Amino acid sequence: MDDPAPDLSLRDAVAALESLYPLQSAAEWDRVGLVTGDLDQPVRRILFALDPTLDVIDEARTWGADLLVTHHPLLLRGVHSVATTSAKGASVTALVRAQIALWVGHTNADVADPGVSTVLADALGLADQRPLSREGENAIGRVGVLAAPVSLADFADVVATALPATAGGIRVSGDPGAEVRTVAVMGGSGDDRFDDVRASGADVFVTADLRHHPVLEAREEARGGRPFLVDAGHWATESLWLASARERLLSALDHVPGATRVETRVSTIRTEPWTFVVGANAARADRAAPDPGGVS
Amino acid sequence: MDDPAPDLSLRDAVAALESLYPLQSAAEWDRVGLVTGDLDQPVRRILFALDPTLDVIDEARTWGADLLVTHHPLLLRGVHSVATTSAKGASVTALVRAQIALWVGHTNADVADPGVSTVLADALGLADQRPLSREGENAIGRVGVLAAPVSLADFADVVATALPATAGGIRVSGDPGAEVRTVAVMGGSGDDRFDDVRASGADVFVTADLRHHPVLEAREEARGGRPFLVDAGHWATESLWLASARERLLSALDHVPGATRVETRVSTIRTEPWTFVVGANAARADRAAPDPGGVS
Amino acid sequence: MDDPAPDLSLRDAVAALESLYPLQSAAEWDRVGLVTGDLDQPVRRILFALDPTLDVIDEARTWGADLLVTHHPLLLRGVHSVATTSAKGASVTALVRAQIALWVGHTNADVADPGVSTVLADALGLADQRPLSREGENAIGRVGVLAAPVSLADFADVVATALPATAGGIRVSGDPGAEVRTVAVMGGSGDDRFDDVRASGADVFVTADLRHHPVLEAREEARGGRPFLVDAGHWATESLWLASARERLLSALDHVPGATRVETRVSTIRTEPWTFVVGANAARADRAAPDPGGVS
Amino acid sequence: MDDPAPDLSLRDAVAALESLYPLQSAAEWDRVGLVTGDLDQPVRRILFALDPTLDVIDEARTWGADLLVTHHPLLLRGVHSVATTSAKGASVTALVRAQIALWVGHTNADVADPGVSTVLADALGLADQRPLSREGENAIGRVGVLAAPVSLADFADVVATALPATAGGIRVSGDPGAEVRTVAVMGGSGDDRFDDVRASGADVFVTADLRHHPVLEAREEARGGRPFLVDAGHWATESLWLASARERLLSALDHVPGATRVETRVSTIRTEPWTFVVGANAARADRAAPDPGGVS
Amino acid sequence: MDDPAPDLSLRDAVAALESLYPLQSAAEWDRVGLVTGDLDQPVRRILFALDPTLDVIDEARTWGADLLVTHHPLLLRGVHSVATTSAKGASVTALVRAQIALWVGHTNADVADPGVSTVLADALGLADQRPLSREGENAIGRVGVLAAPVSLADFADVVATALPATAGGIRVSGDPGAEVRTVAVMGGSGDDRFDDVRASGADVFVTADLRHHPVLEAREEARGGRPFLVDAGHWATESLWLASARERLLSALDHVPGATRVETRVSTIRTEPWTFVVGANAARADRAAPDPGGVS
Amino acid sequence: MDDPAPDLSLRDAVAALESLYPLQSAAEWDRVGLVTGDLDQPVRRILFALDPTLDVIDEARTWGADLLVTHHPLLLRGVHSVATTSAKGASVTALVRAQIALWVGHTNADVADPGVSTVLADALGLADQRPLSREGENAIGRVGVLAAPVSLADFADVVATALPATAGGIRVSGDPGAEVRTVAVMGGSGDDRFDDVRASGADVFVTADLRHHPVLEAREEARGGRPFLVDAGHWATESLWLASARERLLSALDHVPGATRVETRVSTIRTEPWTFVVGANAARADRAAPDPGGVS
Repeated sequence: MDDPAPDLSLRDAVAALESLYPLQSAAEWDRVGLVTGDLDQPVRRILFALDPTLDVIDEARTWGADLLVTHHPLLLRGVHSVATTSAKGASVTALVRAQIALWVGHTNADVADPGVSTVLADALGLADQRPLSREGENAIGRVGVLAAPVSLADFADVVATALPATAGGIRVSGDPGAEVRTVAVMGGSGDDRFDDVRASGADVFVTADLRHHPVLEAREEARGGRPFLVDAGHWATESLWLASARERLLSALDHVPGATRVETRVSTIRTEPWTFVVGANAARADRAAPDPGGVS
Repeated sequence: MDDPAPDLSLRDAVAALESLYPLQSAAEWDRVGLVTGDLDQPVRRILFALDPTLDVIDEARTWGADLLVTHHPLLLRGVHSVATTSAKGASVTALVRAQIALWVGHTNADVADPGVSTVLADALGLADQRPLSREGENAIGRVGVLAAPVSLADFADVVATALPATAGGIRVSGDPGAEVRTVAVMGGSGDDRFDDVRASGADVFVTADLRHHPVLEAREEARGGRPFLVDAGHWATESLWLASARERLLSALDHVPGATRVETRVSTIRTEPWTFVVGANAARADRAAPDPGGVS
Repeated sequence: MDDPAPDLSLRDAVAALESLYPLQSAAEWDRVGLVTGDLDQPVRRILFALDPTLDVIDEARTWGADLLVTHHPLLLRGVHSVATTSAKGASVTALVRAQIALWVGHTNADVADPGVSTVLADALGLADQRPLSREGENAIGRVGVLAAPVSLADFADVVATALPATAGGIRVSGDPGAEVRTVAVMGGSGDDRFDDVRASGADVFVTADLRHHPVLEAREEARGGRPFLVDAGHWATESLWLASARERLLSALDHVPGATRVETRVSTIRTEPWTFVVGANAARADRAAPDPGGVS
Repeated sequence: MDDPAPDLSLRDAVAALESLYPLQSAAEWDRVGLVTGDLDQPVRRILFALDPTLDVIDEARTWGADLLVTHHPLLLRGVHSVATTSAKGASVTALVRAQIALWVGHTNADVADPGVSTVLADALGLADQRPLSREGENAIGRVGVLAAPVSLADFADVVATALPATAGGIRVSGDPGAEVRTVAVMGGSGDDRFDDVRASGADVFVTADLRHHPVLEAREEARGGRPFLVDAGHWATESLWLASARERLLSALDHVPGATRVETRVSTIRTEPWTFVVGANAARADRAAPDPGGVS
Repeated sequence: MDDPAPDLSLRDAVAALESLYPLQSAAEWDRVGLVTGDLDQPVRRILFALDPTLDVIDEARTWGADLLVTHHPLLLRGVHSVATTSAKGASVTALVRAQIALWVGHTNADVADPGVSTVLADALGLADQRPLSREGENAIGRVGVLAAPVSLADFADVVATALPATAGGIRVSGDPGAEVRTVAVMGGSGDDRFDDVRASGADVFVTADLRHHPVLEAREEARGGRPFLVDAGHWATESLWLASARERLLSALDHVPGATRVETRVSTIRTEPWTFVVGANAARADRAAPDPGGVS
Repeated sequence: MDDPAPDLSLRDAVAALESLYPLQSAAEWDRVGLVTGDLDQPVRRILFALDPTLDVIDEARTWGADLLVTHHPLLLRGVHSVATTSAKGASVTALVRAQIALWVGHTNADVADPGVSTVLADALGLADQRPLSREGENAIGRVGVLAAPVSLADFADVVATALPATAGGIRVSGDPGAEVRTVAVMGGSGDDRFDDVRASGADVFVTADLRHHPVLEAREEARGGRPFLVDAGHWATESLWLASARERLLSALDHVPGATRVETRVSTIRTEPWTFVVGANAARADRAAPDPGGVS
């Protein structure tokens, strides 16, 4: 009739997560794994979210989660205080008081297969996927091909449809009418990967957090041509992974005692920081007529 | 009747520029001043642009400029080759072949008064301007007050009106209805200045090149409240300075022999790298209804 | 009749502590101030202890302390997790769950006057106290003179009487019959201060945590003579400060609303790690007859 | 009848020492091998001592030694002067004037088998010895098991009996009545090896030079339980090696011409710096009744 | 009849050079390969020189060279400006204006076989050549033997005859009458290779740029004996390579279209900086009678 | 009648030397002052030499010196052994066995007035001397003017006459007929001072240890013109100081007891390492006819 087993323990939940996303495959500078909690505590509700913000922690507390799984680390830089005067301290304090364990899968989730990059590549319909580059044993990013060539403008619509909508939208650099087929992707911040993208022969690179100088240098190096660039937003390019992680964790827990009673949920909070955008496309570069400059 | 003086020399033009924007006020890591050219060459046409891109250099060449003044350095990192295989090398080669001198005013122009930050603050109508912070003798950024409080949404429109239009638009993080009056500004990349902004008591910070992690941490530290953030684009927040620099240079050259025949012009090329945006405000955070998350 | 004021807030307690031991007088590598807690929480019981060990935290919890003041930092090295798998994590978790604020006064307490060094110097009856050395504005250690010269053996008894008894006892290097009068002191680890001690002209140096190589080199440099060395134990040389800190805090809170109801206490737990000693003085160097070495 | 061979040369003595304790097995930071002397000088008397102190050098001179073998380096840090104003300079000068060669076997002797760690492990009667950890090819420390479990108090007596007596005695951290059987040992300073000790599963760790902070952190990590700690003194834990080295050198020189006339001796000087101890066990942690703390 | 092929392209010339002197065999700190030029430009005249000085560039321009091959890098340290105010900038500007491509083969030419070291060793008639030392895959310097032993004085004449004459001449340290047979050579600066030379068993080391302190220390280490030292000048020891490089390039281009019409030439400019020498041998150490020193 | 005072002590001799050449005026990287000896030993004979080579130490021993004063440090890099297997060890051993104290005045002698640079400037007849540059309180090098302009060739003869003759001779870079009057000098290695020399307006720079790359870059920066360069040899440019030091020490010891009996002497050993030179001026750059280069 009912499940006679005790509750799933945090120890078992963490073991399942780390079998999927081994800690040793994280980058050396990264800080992944268990951040709060006691391995002996029971786990009945698991919330998945991209960032462990105060709102997300509040959602977890309200829903009664005892395990929060996030992609981004809470304590990437070491802390010397968890007093509530800082946001990091307030977050740790809120988690500990509500007895919510936090587990982070960051670069170890990026390089997993399926992981952040492959989920993104799959969502864009890329075939023949291969790593964008390699660091040691790990595959960084992915390169694949679309079923058929499309214009850059149409490709931007493909991206917009595949990813969750946001206020920030999707920024594109390149000729809207140019054809693209080979696509490189890397969830999150990708502006230190332009050498790899050029070497890959990709027509377009989908990533996020692109800043003026690296992007302009990449566009100069491309002499205005391929590879084009799509900044699809840090949250949007990575958040698709949450459903994958939830599904894989449930499979991994399949025969673990007590796991059948565990409830899981992906957070409804968009942790992209932008609330709204003004004046986008006010001067689309592909249509802009040169202003007459003043001459003295 | 006519001007009997010889042409203005590059030596005199550089001297005038460096009296306005002294090289020693640049940051230690910065690389400013003369990048190409011969101090004895004549200067008849001066083009002002934010970035020394290949397109800008071509504009200079076509117009017949013999001096290009830019805000961003061409060779911030030292080069060991100027062969045309790299974009930097192609740029240097194009400048040298066309005998165009390049002079850069970067962090020395940021901290000048009037300079990049004050021009931006003036454009937004800020009164009672004071430095956002100080490094040695130099003032970094500005803080000032609007004539009257306005909502954050209306303030975004103020920014959009004051700055040149771009494809990328202006991204805003914060409650659109919240009132703002004290404004911190910093042209270009400002996501390493959040401590100063918080200390300044500003209601909103206008800058650019904001990335997910620093912005989200700043929003957490603000517990979702003030200071709000406006990413108005790197090019847009800095390009207003070009007209100021042109005007100040003409004044500085007022009594220099040969300068009366010099023609000047601000480039018509927008060197913001984004061509177009898709899906902005598709899910405005201020209106979004929480999605029901799946529960297994 | 009764005190109509609300409880003392942590904000006020921290302000009082930091007026006595300003954070900016701590060494650059040190991590002092508030480690756990919320500035708005009430403070009714304050426990003082040298080290924030799990036993001390348990004592605080059992007694109902809501503020723990310690000399040694809990998080001198930054942490990336407070899960209970590590002792540091278990300590933070225990403090946060029991709503106990932790405040640390370390090198800022060392250099205060009265502070760790002056309390130790006073306990040994040193007159004419002066700093052992200076780092910037701060005085490190103290040098003073005894009322009258005593033998090194008798001085060791003076130290043993002045400091709380421990299992580890007091180790002495030098001729027991030699006379000493000028005494240098430095609570805690002092074996990087021998140059200063020699320069001070002290006859004997009282400190702790002395290791073989630095001590032997110091004894060689002294050619077996002055300055002699007394390792009186890290805990014992610093723990006298706790009563001073308690007393000074009460004075500082004198007119703060709610403070009259605050209870304070010095922990009864000796956090010296040594439980017992075997064989001390089994071969006292001052009495040992040379063994006949074997000759082949 | 008599030995017709010339005297043993320093060249041959050094070759024998370095066949037993190869220089390349020393740690990179270490400075081992010949410190003073001329390879062509004759060697008739060899003194073994832990530290090349001025007293030990004087013993060597008085006895007529022409080779001094020590465990600790004289010049671990490079010197720029050997004037007699410094103790190091006075030591070098004394050795050179008395024509005494000094040869040092430090970390190369630690990792040898038999070497410092195995001699210590043997003295404690440990069976099934294995390395505590490894650095490259080298074994650091040893772990082994006692013939039968004993209480920690009795184990401390075992250590006291096995090692030469000193003034400093043996400090123990842990429950005197707890049973121990698996023992980790490391001669000299071992407080940077606690991770290895925990990983080894040892019940108790015998080493020396333990300071307050690392020890207290190790005790916290052990939650007051195993592994317990024994600080048996730097000199005492390493000096047993001297007899082993003497014996092995004599074997190695067995057929070397002139070696049969060589006399050898282990120094009778204890170079532990502590002369006497006061108040050890004055407050044994295992018996101490909690003091009533003052409450205001 | 005539060659119907188009001109040799810089792309093909660079490919040929880099097949002979692969860029990846250069030292990590070195900066080799193409410095100026466009891979699509035609190459009709190639000049070879040791240093890309302004005089050499002028020779190239005057002769009509469109490719200059040098051994020493022009931009070993990265430059942030090529304005003509600096000599480096003036050199780059002169090359770019005259459309002269510059290609550098430095440490990749040193280690090639044949390369700078083997050409030097061959010129001195050394047989049984082997590397002086190795760095990774690369052979540094060469050691070989003369056909028969000669006096150091005669060997100096051999060197003087084999190398091009200069104003600086050849400096020798050692007994002129001592016999030498095994010779180590290293073109350019070799005073960081004395350990390798001693290990090689060479009687004499031919290199350049020898400074007082390293040379005197090497002579002390040799106790005035072998290995002796010959400083034959940086330019002279390396310039023999130029003819070898020219010849090898022509062979490599043998079947490349358009290459048959290419003219090549070794520069006639000696870029050794010394114009003349005064007073050499004024006090030959091998003949000097000790002066009577003054005694007060 | 006779001098009743005891011998001069090393303590007094060192005090006199360090009053003339204070240790604190040495560069931070330098190692000056007493290297061997005992402050209580008597000093009867003092030898002055540029370098503490084995030959110089032998001269000191043979003459019976008990104090050797040199300009160059023996132990600039710290040593971990003084065994005679290394030249440095053999030198220390020889000094200690012969009871010869060694005192070094290096960069503290360079910057003294009179010191190495002023003695050199005086020898060349320079008037109106001023520092070439400054580091903190110290003057580095000197700049002065000749009584009348002379050709560079004649100036080289002036240098050759003023300095002691050597085998190495004096190397000159520049037009022999060009006129020079303002002269910068710096004894020893000066090829890191070219910026200062250019800034000083000197016509010619006299120094030593000049290497190909820095010299060629300096000549390029000078566009073949002023400042010209003279490499007059490390030993020759510094050895004039020895007589000055001897004279000043005698004055400083004037009224010190026992000093009247002290004998002093400047070493007769030239520690320039070059024994002879071959082929100097074989191809004087000022006369060389360009060779016809081969053209294929």
